[in-house]
Amino acid sequence: MKISIVKIGGNVIDYPEKLDEFLSIFAKILGFKILVHGGGVMASRFGESMGIMPEMVDGRRITDKDTLDIVTMVFAGLISKSVVAKLQALKVNALGMSGVDGNLIRSTKRPFKEIDFGFVGDIKEVNVVLLQQLLQAGMIPVVNAITHDKKGQLLNTNADSIASAIATTLSKVYPVDLYFCFNKSGVLVDEKNDQSIIPLINEDIYNELRKENVIHSGMIPKLDNAFEALKQGVQRVWIGKAENLLMAVKGKKAGTIIERQRYELY
Amino acid sequence: MKISIVKIGGNVIDYPEKLDEFLSIFAKILGFKILVHGGGVMASRFGESMGIMPEMVDGRRITDKDTLDIVTMVFAGLISKSVVAKLQALKVNALGMSGVDGNLIRSTKRPFKEIDFGFVGDIKEVNVVLLQQLLQAGMIPVVNAITHDKKGQLLNTNADSIASAIATTLSKVYPVDLYFCFNKSGVLVDEKNDQSIIPLINEDIYNELRKENVIHSGMIPKLDNAFEALKQGVQRVWIGKAENLLMAVKGKKAGTIIERQRYELY
Repeated sequence: MKISIVKIGGNVIDYPEKLDEFLSIFAKILGFKILVHGGGVMASRFGESMGIMPEMVDGRRITDKDTLDIVTMVFAGLISKSVVAKLQALKVNALGMSGVDGNLIRSTKRPFKEIDFGFVGDIKEVNVVLLQQLLQAGMIPVVNAITHDKKGQLLNTNADSIASAIATTLSKVYPVDLYFCFNKSGVLVDEKNDQSIIPLINEDIYNELRKENVIHSGMIPKLDNAFEALKQGVQRVWIGKAENLLMAVKGKKAGTIIERQRYELY
Repeated sequence: MKISIVKIGGNVIDYPEKLDEFLSIFAKILGFKILVHGGGVMASRFGESMGIMPEMVDGRRITDKDTLDIVTMVFAGLISKSVVAKLQALKVNALGMSGVDGNLIRSTKRPFKEIDFGFVGDIKEVNVVLLQQLLQAGMIPVVNAITHDKKGQLLNTNADSIASAIATTLSKVYPVDLYFCFNKSGVLVDEKNDQSIIPLINEDIYNELRKENVIHSGMIPKLDNAFEALKQGVQRVWIGKAENLLMAVKGKKAGTIIERQRYELY
């Protein structure tokens, strides 16, 4: 059976109405599915209310001990359990998990180079057997961005990377589609025009667009990540707005599809 | 196979050294096992650092919306994931869960009588099939005190009650022993003398002791809870200090054993 892996971030999590709308869409996706979530803004807000200010470098959070406690509380506690409660109410048998639970994701602390990111994890291994057991038992994993090093240390991990790692690992066993929901309607020709969606990108098109400087710099890590997932066996990657997810799953025109090989547009 | 269900509270959770000692003991318990934890002191401390003061009535926390967020963050986030990470490092394949995950525990919001406890849950149902699936798959559930009403609402629930409810539900399928770790060496004749342990209590002895006012009032809910679990099918209940748990599991003299029927003392 095909598996849909969907990643959402703060632009959905932080707005109760958007979250409810998204979850009702997610509930309608047929077949095996896994939800991966971040939740950065909420973590920053709770940290600030406790006098701990967020420190970001290149969009990545510096994670000292106090910050690790806060992201663990917010991601694996408040957000995970609220999302699972809402999904359970929608009759989706969700199970909230961090990478430590059942040793789902083992990572290692990022080595100190120019910047010490602190307790930040780079993913080493995804427990594919556990995911298969849970999916086969009818459960829908809801995975947050806290992983561990198997030596007792929790590590804050990038949620996009978690979604990609789960997708590539499962792609050895099942056909996998990977959906990234973010705050734009897709990859755009003009960042200021949310209608200027590029409907399909493959490696040829990507190289062409980069040569012409069409791709906004903020999109490059996302797209590199997507192509890496495709190389590892994921069938297709989608980038777009959460509210268009169901259209995308059903193969209708919405957002940007990223594929290895060129094929007919829609 | 026999199942051991162990409940720990703040007197273990709040002290890193005690927690590490306890977890190394828990790791040594053979057979199926489940850990249930509270963690009240840590929740109060985090709440206070955010300007939210704990409000207790008869030892039970009044749970308004802010307090519910805090206990969800602390119990289901920080404590759950820290404990699971430590167990994983000890090669115990732990999986942290709240009652909402996989619909493990459904509860209902306690009705408003004299006191409005807020978002506090009374347990209605334990998902025995899920526990069997997880145990059979080699996982060790680590269960925290957050449950849900299956309508999207999280509820703060008494951890002793969760341990009892899991034990009684599983006792329909497996032989179950239930272990309550607390801050005394057992049920004591003299509250001030931690050596004055009553090694065995059954209903006859309990009635006798209550008649003579030997049982301290704080122990009565714990013992009533224990006898209820025994009536529902649990084989034996143990009350004592976390550091004596392994002795108790091995049948050695430690703490207080509570059984329905009188039998030979040790």
